[in-house]
Amino acid sequence: MTSRDGFQWTPESGLTQGVPSLGVISPPTNIKDTDKDGQWDVIVIGGGYCGLTATRDLTLAGFKTLLLEARDRIGGRSWSSNIDGYPYEMGGTWVHWHQSHVWREITRYKMHNALSPSFNFSRGVNHFQLRTNPTSSTYMTHEAEDELLRSALHKFTNVDGANGRTVLPFPHDMFHVPEFRKYDEMSYAERMEQIKDELSLNERSSLEAFILLCSGGKMENSSFGEFLHWWAMSGYTYQGCMDCLISYKFTEGQSAFARRFWEEAMGTGRLGYVFSCPVGSVVDEEGGRGVRVRVTARDGREFVAKRVVCTIPLNVLSTIQFSPALATEKVSAMQAGHVNMCTKVHAEVDNKDMRSWTGIAYPFNKLCYAIGDGTTPAGNTHLVCFGTDTNHIQPDEDVRETLKAVGELAPGEFGVKRLVFHNWVKDEFAKGAWFFSRPGMVSGCLEGLRERHGGVVFANSDWALGWRSFIDGAIEEGTRAARVVLEDLGTKREEVKARL
Amino acid sequence: MTSRDGFQWTPESGLTQGVPSLGVISPPTNIKDTDKDGQWDVIVIGGGYCGLTATRDLTLAGFKTLLLEARDRIGGRSWSSNIDGYPYEMGGTWVHWHQSHVWREITRYKMHNALSPSFNFSRGVNHFQLRTNPTSSTYMTHEAEDELLRSALHKFTNVDGANGRTVLPFPHDMFHVPEFRKYDEMSYAERMEQIKDELSLNERSSLEAFILLCSGGKMENSSFGEFLHWWAMSGYTYQGCMDCLISYKFTEGQSAFARRFWEEAMGTGRLGYVFSCPVGSVVDEEGGRGVRVRVTARDGREFVAKRVVCTIPLNVLSTIQFSPALATEKVSAMQAGHVNMCTKVHAEVDNKDMRSWTGIAYPFNKLCYAIGDGTTPAGNTHLVCFGTDTNHIQPDEDVRETLKAVGELAPGEFGVKRLVFHNWVKDEFAKGAWFFSRPGMVSGCLEGLRERHGGVVFANSDWALGWRSFIDGAIEEGTRAARVVLEDLGTKREEVKARL
Repeated sequence: MTSRDGFQWTPESGLTQGVPSLGVISPPTNIKDTDKDGQWDVIVIGGGYCGLTATRDLTLAGFKTLLLEARDRIGGRSWSSNIDGYPYEMGGTWVHWHQSHVWREITRYKMHNALSPSFNFSRGVNHFQLRTNPTSSTYMTHEAEDELLRSALHKFTNVDGANGRTVLPFPHDMFHVPEFRKYDEMSYAERMEQIKDELSLNERSSLEAFILLCSGGKMENSSFGEFLHWWAMSGYTYQGCMDCLISYKFTEGQSAFARRFWEEAMGTGRLGYVFSCPVGSVVDEEGGRGVRVRVTARDGREFVAKRVVCTIPLNVLSTIQFSPALATEKVSAMQAGHVNMCTKVHAEVDNKDMRSWTGIAYPFNKLCYAIGDGTTPAGNTHLVCFGTDTNHIQPDEDVRETLKAVGELAPGEFGVKRLVFHNWVKDEFAKGAWFFSRPGMVSGCLEGLRERHGGVVFANSDWALGWRSFIDGAIEEGTRAARVVLEDLGTKREEVKARL
Repeated sequence: MTSRDGFQWTPESGLTQGVPSLGVISPPTNIKDTDKDGQWDVIVIGGGYCGLTATRDLTLAGFKTLLLEARDRIGGRSWSSNIDGYPYEMGGTWVHWHQSHVWREITRYKMHNALSPSFNFSRGVNHFQLRTNPTSSTYMTHEAEDELLRSALHKFTNVDGANGRTVLPFPHDMFHVPEFRKYDEMSYAERMEQIKDELSLNERSSLEAFILLCSGGKMENSSFGEFLHWWAMSGYTYQGCMDCLISYKFTEGQSAFARRFWEEAMGTGRLGYVFSCPVGSVVDEEGGRGVRVRVTARDGREFVAKRVVCTIPLNVLSTIQFSPALATEKVSAMQAGHVNMCTKVHAEVDNKDMRSWTGIAYPFNKLCYAIGDGTTPAGNTHLVCFGTDTNHIQPDEDVRETLKAVGELAPGEFGVKRLVFHNWVKDEFAKGAWFFSRPGMVSGCLEGLRERHGGVVFANSDWALGWRSFIDGAIEEGTRAARVVLEDLGTKREEVKARL
């Protein structure tokens, strides 16, 4: 099946929209237009991992659940396109066993041996290429690359002589040490100013490329505290970051994983769904007492349930009309938005030995960080390349410029046979990539974003406590939302009997 | 409520059996003697974390579930006694956010900020005391302690120039690299023989005390591969081990956590239970086709269900009669048993500054490893002390010898006001502490131990894939067992309706 989402470019066919994916659901709905009021216990808005988890948990617990999804596929900001049997990860990709919620599901679905490493340092171009200007390259072993980044990240994170352990001892409880607020309020740029004299040019370029890869934003608008949070979650080490952030992916692609949730929920016989159904408004008809919520799609279709789980991302929330109006904290966070404008571009290149290459080209290039991420069925190397809001590119608007940015990562080393990407910034249902906080946003808004609104439970990785922004955080939030509904509507024998 | 389990000793009252715990369940049953055949979908044998997780998941999914437990309390090998409002952890204690299954539950029950650190290096006796003989002590800073153990553990684990990363890249898939089998088959003693010339006396003593603390066994009968597995799960670092193995515990004690599972399952109205009900036999009356299983308690009471989840630990399995007979792999593993004969003794000592002390006394002492683990309501330090099968002590049999072993950890530093312990070795429902593998046991028996037997699903942390032996592994296994039953008995609307 082919999704409307995503783009592909080849020299032969040029740019085309839509790529095949295991995540496309057909037929697009399993309910009749005439479905009546009162049929649903819960409506889940959004079929990313958060919505899928909530849907799976709720249907298993006996709730008649309706999933509404704006796209033609499951997975939200994490999905894979399968092109000639090879999976390209269009968004969220990597998972690790130190990420509790996603790993619980991976084990539960017996996929613990369905992972492959992204890095493979066994081929010919087995080095790190650092380009801090368009006219030269520095080449290093991967061991030297690790040492460079380790050193730079230790300087960046070492605010307390303990690489953040003292100021952020419980990463799920960010303000356990109240002093941490000041790091949350600090921008990347402000922290860099504090340590700039300790960094070599190579350290500084690599460090900025790495932390901007994490935030997808700019030095001025990315929160230093949010990076420290990623760092703490990863065990306060560079190696932990590499392991947790960018090392292990699903051999068959994310959409193969997402389908497990989908199929388990479908198997209960309690799941109704409508795809290609963006929501226009959510009205709590009991005025916040939350016993009857009406969801109206943009096309006018109406659905009613006792509870709604809304998994719409932060940057999209303002496109939906809520009644009663949302509380101030939510509104101000929605209006500010998160800063991640990451561009992720896959390039199939005709040099198989690039499999073992890694590179940084910063600040001059529109793609600043890339790694060899696999070998395609044709025997080519698949490079995954990242750009940020610092030097932004819209790859669908200018393929020539995108090809140039890919080429600039390692001039003369390869020709590009294919590009594959999803432009998350222009995607009306994402308006950016994974959440990354502005300075002060987590201390100011996190609690407000997590609060329910009458009969509407808000859940999204964007406001998870642990691996916020990650697939793990989405599952954390879906799990939480399902439990809130379980507690509201009850799990007793009589209550479940009445629902079935 | 007071459990029959556990012992307490004070100078005033001497040794008494039974300590108070939040985990005691009263009344001990909620079903009538006259309950009929066919009432239960599932019988779960054992109310440790594995059984509690299976019970919680199954009752939530609409299954009428009967929990049978031999003890008077929940929690199995992990429970806390509350003495004067202070929790002493009688068995499994520490948890970490890199342990996926337990952390998923901690987040789900909103207990992510209900943890406290065990270590607190802010008081007077702020050092590590190493005693390799009964006549002298070496004192070090905690930084030097870390460096000593880090160095020794790196030598111990560095079989591949990458501290185990190359031979055990996917710790949940232990034999992903088939060569790993040889480490599984290697004993601690054999590995020590390979590196003994690289170790200082202090390194060797500390290392042996540390790895025996992990196995609870002897150098000759503990599997080196199993230790490497713990090491890999912890991120292949000493700091990771310290973080994951011994750093964070529940402020209110384990039993406060276990009760969350219990209360959620009870809330469904689908949980029947009988405590103080050890099981004598499990008969699959359909001869392995598994549609009707009869469980007979030692006292003759009989219970029948469509499926049984048996969470009895490895070392106890042979006390139950199974029909049809179990497969060879299970029987041979049961007969061999695991090696962990750990002795864990809490000592309340009258020196409040011992709060910041850590110590190793090995090999001469019957308690080889201890740390300051808290401050009691009386303002005393609570030390937690461990012994192993290498120099074994039965604390309930000889309190004088136990007091001597506690005193030998730091001679002259304190008087003992109280001892609290559970003798797991003599406990007929445990016959040892957490699972630790003999050489070759995991490669030889793990798959067989995980296999179902007709209508009986076997689940226990003893044969988990990830954090085997840990609370995390128990939850992993309970989650797996519940899913097996879900798949067997179905989650469809009609199937659930029929059950309710």
